[in-house]
Amino acid sequence: MNTRPRHRPRILLHDPTLRDGHHAVGHQLDADQLRAYAIAANAAGVPVVEVGHGNGLGASSLQIGRARLDDATMLSTVREALTTSRMGAFMAPGWGTSDDLAAAVHHGADVVRIAAHCTEADVTERHLGVVRDLGAEAQGVLLMSHMTSAGELAEQCALMVKFGAQAVGIMDSAGHYLPDEVTKRVRAIAIAVDVPVIFHGHNNLGLAVANSLAAVDAGASILDATARGFGAGAGNTQLEVLVAVLERHGLETGIGLREILAAADVVANRLMTTPPSIDSIAVASGLAGVFSGFKRPVLETARAEGVDPVDLFLALGARQIVAGQEDMIGDVARQLKAVTR
Amino acid sequence: MNTRPRHRPRILLHDPTLRDGHHAVGHQLDADQLRAYAIAANAAGVPVVEVGHGNGLGASSLQIGRARLDDATMLSTVREALTTSRMGAFMAPGWGTSDDLAAAVHHGADVVRIAAHCTEADVTERHLGVVRDLGAEAQGVLLMSHMTSAGELAEQCALMVKFGAQAVGIMDSAGHYLPDEVTKRVRAIAIAVDVPVIFHGHNNLGLAVANSLAAVDAGASILDATARGFGAGAGNTQLEVLVAVLERHGLETGIGLREILAAADVVANRLMTTPPSIDSIAVASGLAGVFSGFKRPVLETARAEGVDPVDLFLALGARQIVAGQEDMIGDVARQLKAVTR
Repeated sequence: MNTRPRHRPRILLHDPTLRDGHHAVGHQLDADQLRAYAIAANAAGVPVVEVGHGNGLGASSLQIGRARLDDATMLSTVREALTTSRMGAFMAPGWGTSDDLAAAVHHGADVVRIAAHCTEADVTERHLGVVRDLGAEAQGVLLMSHMTSAGELAEQCALMVKFGAQAVGIMDSAGHYLPDEVTKRVRAIAIAVDVPVIFHGHNNLGLAVANSLAAVDAGASILDATARGFGAGAGNTQLEVLVAVLERHGLETGIGLREILAAADVVANRLMTTPPSIDSIAVASGLAGVFSGFKRPVLETARAEGVDPVDLFLALGARQIVAGQEDMIGDVARQLKAVTR
Repeated sequence: MNTRPRHRPRILLHDPTLRDGHHAVGHQLDADQLRAYAIAANAAGVPVVEVGHGNGLGASSLQIGRARLDDATMLSTVREALTTSRMGAFMAPGWGTSDDLAAAVHHGADVVRIAAHCTEADVTERHLGVVRDLGAEAQGVLLMSHMTSAGELAEQCALMVKFGAQAVGIMDSAGHYLPDEVTKRVRAIAIAVDVPVIFHGHNNLGLAVANSLAAVDAGASILDATARGFGAGAGNTQLEVLVAVLERHGLETGIGLREILAAADVVANRLMTTPPSIDSIAVASGLAGVFSGFKRPVLETARAEGVDPVDLFLALGARQIVAGQEDMIGDVARQLKAVTR
């Protein structure tokens, strides 16, 4: 251990366990659960603990799913539990509004992420400005980023920096990337902007940790990861695994291994119902590049129309369906049924 | 899809679901379970279906764990279920003998793996010769391969080829590798031998799929993987995920995606009790580079001596403990206890 250089490059791990994990439990975490994990993450030295409804500020609704707690309660519960970790919030314009941003910062959010579909960075302009004006750190992230090119992502990220983003990056919302695809995209973004670059992985193809490593090697310095991979379907990049892997890779995170393993045990024992695993649906949606959040409507439609959900995912992927186009699932299922008859 | 080249490089997937998976269920699979999976794997076009006690031919014993079925019953059950897939068997000299090899081939094994610790290829000489004489395909694999250098592994593999091995390679028995470490080792082996190179991954650090991809890019053409990752602890490389990833990577496996997803569902629904997941112990043993098979004795010793199992794994790793040295676990635990008092 003494042969290591004393000053290793520092990677900032951003932890959306209490936001992305909400997708895995229908947004039903209670205050005791939020508090227990926030205390453990804070003790482990996690730099940013993000909390909220799975779809972010303002998203709790009958259509998307009602969270057990309102945004204010979630934020203030976690805020009270953190002594050194900063608190993060997430908002996708359309679900959330400027009022939600103001309330989040009022309740102690230090870092606020504004998310947009990978080609629609222009919708983040006003909200990134609001976050800056409120005095919080503003970050911009592009969803479903596999759907466009490295060059386009670099341009969209540069646009968000112009709008005031102090860190920008990409989400692999469908868990679709291979490592070399991440390398190409992150490298293009890192060249185009002079702020830290973010990578957020999902594990549908079992590559979330490897993709995060590829992102770091290509110039990313903020990696998102959740304890035990707590998140929808196949889950996110697994935080404690990433801590161990970055350590082996010679990079410093400032997070204690034993403490983050203990935090992961809190998630396993108190927050999650079943550990994330890569089932057949997760493989099909990752391969197809379809947003993981489509799992439930796709399964329901497949059952109702009597088509194979794997076939339905692959057909939706071929049609480049994106979030917000849930109403097309039925049409595609019926076309599939007509063809396979 | 029509833009793909028609002839893509072919990777042979070798499937030890019914052998490595046995570790996850105390070697208790019954004939109906073996048959159900073998039929599904055969239907998916899996090239080799390996079956047996988790530790291989002749290993069923009170000390290591008694299998529900004897070797002959396991082999003949799977043999009857396969019409196009070949059948594989595995033997580590010390647990198995030449008589076990003869029985395995008599019961229809087409491919027989002889395994040795990474620096002890010399123990495979006689058994590789026996397999060749019996008319089956002989393969040689090195266990705990992270414990030695690329150069040494290349020499040991070349030795096994001299002994008659028709394919050789390495197992990441502890799930310790990062992709660049696999690249270096597989490349050295591929340069040193003129037979197909094998890579067998485990998922302790969430990198089994990525390491398999690195192995292929470095010259491996036989990859081991199990359905749903069925295997001890964090499990093996997940077969159906690897099929999807290799497809995305432009490589042909001859395995049907829908059919292998169906085979994986057979494992999930009929063979496994809980899906493999990367728990804190798996991370610690992967990081420490300790053989996954040590999990049970390490947990028991940690409890008995009142030390943290994560600390015990890391201490065992620092001492480079290998399989067969189980008796040292207690000593290391007591030293640890003395130090931390």
